[in-house]
Amino acid sequence: MCQLLGMNCNVPTDICFSFEGFAARGGKTDEHQDGWGIAFFEGLGCRLFLDVKAAIASPIADLVRHYPIKSKHVIAHIRKATFGVVALENCHPFRRELWGRYWVFAHNGDLPDFDPTNQTYYRPVGQTDSERAFCLLLNTLRQAFPAAKPVLAELYPVLQQITTEIAQFGTFNYLLSDGEHFFAHCSTKLCYVVRQAPFAAAHLIDEDVTVDFQELTTPCDRVAIIATTPLTDNETWTPIPPGQVVVFQDGQPLGEGKGQ
Amino acid sequence: MCQLLGMNCNVPTDICFSFEGFAARGGKTDEHQDGWGIAFFEGLGCRLFLDVKAAIASPIADLVRHYPIKSKHVIAHIRKATFGVVALENCHPFRRELWGRYWVFAHNGDLPDFDPTNQTYYRPVGQTDSERAFCLLLNTLRQAFPAAKPVLAELYPVLQQITTEIAQFGTFNYLLSDGEHFFAHCSTKLCYVVRQAPFAAAHLIDEDVTVDFQELTTPCDRVAIIATTPLTDNETWTPIPPGQVVVFQDGQPLGEGKGQ
Repeated sequence: MCQLLGMNCNVPTDICFSFEGFAARGGKTDEHQDGWGIAFFEGLGCRLFLDVKAAIASPIADLVRHYPIKSKHVIAHIRKATFGVVALENCHPFRRELWGRYWVFAHNGDLPDFDPTNQTYYRPVGQTDSERAFCLLLNTLRQAFPAAKPVLAELYPVLQQITTEIAQFGTFNYLLSDGEHFFAHCSTKLCYVVRQAPFAAAHLIDEDVTVDFQELTTPCDRVAIIATTPLTDNETWTPIPPGQVVVFQDGQPLGEGKGQ
Repeated sequence: MCQLLGMNCNVPTDICFSFEGFAARGGKTDEHQDGWGIAFFEGLGCRLFLDVKAAIASPIADLVRHYPIKSKHVIAHIRKATFGVVALENCHPFRRELWGRYWVFAHNGDLPDFDPTNQTYYRPVGQTDSERAFCLLLNTLRQAFPAAKPVLAELYPVLQQITTEIAQFGTFNYLLSDGEHFFAHCSTKLCYVVRQAPFAAAHLIDEDVTVDFQELTTPCDRVAIIATTPLTDNETWTPIPPGQVVVFQDGQPLGEGKGQ
């Protein structure tokens, strides 16, 4: 199995603190040693770092830990290989272009016997069940809306329906973003915390590191951190209800994921 | 205008030496300060580093200079913005998936008044003429061969023809690879050197650095370096004939680009 980390904010924010604790699970405090990746949206652009090395041993992870890239949408993943060999093409997040925007996806869970035939527009490059699921999500969205990205209220039910269909094959916790909307689906395990004023200090579970966000933020900042399991031991993390695609916008869940 | 750097090899090789000289042109020995990028194929996987900072000031370029990522297909680019603002979405190389493989593209030159309407499968995310050209190349290849990648002898004439059509709009020097085949097109300025046994020492033009490849290679290694202008001052660089798509394979041009 793997672990997910996502961040959605109302102003571009760096993820150095959360990534520090998350990356420790890539071989130090947990067993996810079979590669890792992180995607940062910056406007329309998207920066994607991938490595087959364990996050704790990767020079690229070291760069990400110390280079404060500011972004409103971040998706990260550490991998423990189940389906697919340990190889760069099997590292999450995966990225494709749809409607002239980049879409980024990372998955936690297994989807045994999941082998969709719909490859109308997007095909997997690697061998994971995860990339197959991502391609099916995008193929479905594109077939439903061939011309352009619809408003969220139209996109959401199509995404929720295909997500529910895929989730029947196994465990399908995922994070998905196009740099405008941020989607999180919990099948078994995914939780989030919203940090906003009054900011306090947060202490990592996986590393003995504390950050006082009050010193680093303005009163208007709001940040949602979404993760497979809580990253801090002195904040209240909210479990995401299984079965529902939750939409995050400007650092908080939108109307309990009803896409309103 | 921009500058291109490509590498095609018969065994995975790091590009640290050539990138050292190339990156110096990103703000030190030349004026290409508006972002840079580099793509490494590793098997089916592809690692893409992009930054809007000048290559000489980028912590990510610093990582690439010192982290020996080994690859048989590398494409790099330093940008001096002409069309499109300085933004991550306008940094080359661009990447898309076609036939279940990643395709990577970088361009040097301007294509004024180039605004193709064919957006059947691929659409640009940013505002550059270059990304529009890349999308048209892929749309054309995919429409010609909808099911799967054809053999090179079938793919080559389609690529050559659409390249010639696009080149009529302006200057169209480019590098293109899917990790299996490496294509280079010269419109005005592109040259290459093949390094093979007996290896000698090479000295960079842009930095006072010499590497003795004899110490680093085996007699079977062969590496082609393709660049806008020569990177070394003690090797013989061959200009690529304008108008022709040259295919590199295993570190050398294939039959003068006839795709045989």
